[in-house]
Amino acid sequence: MRSLVIHPVEGLPEVQAGDGLAALVAGACDGERGPVLVDGDVVVVTQKVVSKAEGRVVDLDPDDPDARRRLVEAEAVRVLRRRGELLVTETAHGFVCANAGVDLSNVARGRAALLPVDPDRSARRIRDGLRATLGVELAVVVSDTFGRPWRRGATDVAIGCAGVAAVVDLRGGTDALGRSLEVTEVAVADELAAAAELVMGKAASVPVAVVRGVDGAWLRESSVGAEVVRPPAEDLFR
Amino acid sequence: MRSLVIHPVEGLPEVQAGDGLAALVAGACDGERGPVLVDGDVVVVTQKVVSKAEGRVVDLDPDDPDARRRLVEAEAVRVLRRRGELLVTETAHGFVCANAGVDLSNVARGRAALLPVDPDRSARRIRDGLRATLGVELAVVVSDTFGRPWRRGATDVAIGCAGVAAVVDLRGGTDALGRSLEVTEVAVADELAAAAELVMGKAASVPVAVVRGVDGAWLRESSVGAEVVRPPAEDLFR
Repeated sequence: MRSLVIHPVEGLPEVQAGDGLAALVAGACDGERGPVLVDGDVVVVTQKVVSKAEGRVVDLDPDDPDARRRLVEAEAVRVLRRRGELLVTETAHGFVCANAGVDLSNVARGRAALLPVDPDRSARRIRDGLRATLGVELAVVVSDTFGRPWRRGATDVAIGCAGVAAVVDLRGGTDALGRSLEVTEVAVADELAAAAELVMGKAASVPVAVVRGVDGAWLRESSVGAEVVRPPAEDLFR
Repeated sequence: MRSLVIHPVEGLPEVQAGDGLAALVAGACDGERGPVLVDGDVVVVTQKVVSKAEGRVVDLDPDDPDARRRLVEAEAVRVLRRRGELLVTETAHGFVCANAGVDLSNVARGRAALLPVDPDRSARRIRDGLRATLGVELAVVVSDTFGRPWRRGATDVAIGCAGVAAVVDLRGGTDALGRSLEVTEVAVADELAAAAELVMGKAASVPVAVVRGVDGAWLRESSVGAEVVRPPAEDLFR
């Protein structure tokens, strides 16, 4: 059986602007707080700690009820829908998500976390740092929690990746009965982010998880921006 | 560390109408083809084998180019968008998905698989059967592969569940800094389905996986229909 194991990485310190995430993750993956990293691992890091490390946390007047809306509108390139305090927005990255990814949870009062400027680059930087520090060939996914239309509840998805396919294209393959496959493209980076979320827990302060046992064929250079973001011209819901 | 393990269940026979899936899964979970099941496991079963076992496979004239469209329109309660052969539809269950879930892959030529009539009931039946056969208290998720707007690639989601929360409500909880949480509801059944897909592979004919190590607090009676399907009045994209 080819099983997959998802390990939480616990006990990371509170991340500050300028911190090197690769070094923090490498330190925590000591076999006690997190698994000793090996070739082929996929390290999933939540957006929140990436944004903190990259200084993407800004002041937000907690007593001004309009301050957040203004910040969301500044971060968004387009507002698709409004309902009360919820804005469904398109970000500069092309992500469609609530409130342009502006997030007030797990940051200090009076502060707000923004999305990383280029989450694929963030993932590459962490991957390169882990490779340099530990000498391991692994992959990194930067994850965030997005809602969806039509279905209640949020799930974690990939907003950046390095060293692992964002989308696996099964076009031209055949199914177990030899028919050509109908569903051809699987967003494995999103599924890795979702799987990692199962050991993180929103309140438990586990911002990193390691997925071990991923299909080696998926370990290639990739990018969420290039492979997952659906151009508006292809999209039926914009 | 509280790790999660996802085991594929291999070597299931080709499923026929009338087959008892619980017995087939129990037989395959022999410690070789699949893990010996224990209390707290979440067994994820793909829609395709559930539909086959429940006889939800119909004839479809492979030489009539309109036959599929007519079947999709018959299965749908509403068509949200059309583009070429793709219809984005709402099903009687309230799911919004491509082609009303009508699926031609992994079925014989001239046949099409439809969604189960009540996938939550399907999940309960498998769960009850495994409990009766093996004496274990576990959960079942029935999964299917859905596309999404705005993002390329499909992911597996839950269309039915039994014994595990579809959505975990963290409303009223606090984050690691003591702030009330903003993102409050996590669709854990969808994340379990996505995680399971990582060991299945579309072409590999592994229609069942077992997720071990799930948070015990999530193991409760639930329903995708009641907890995940977003009523049209709540929805901003219908």
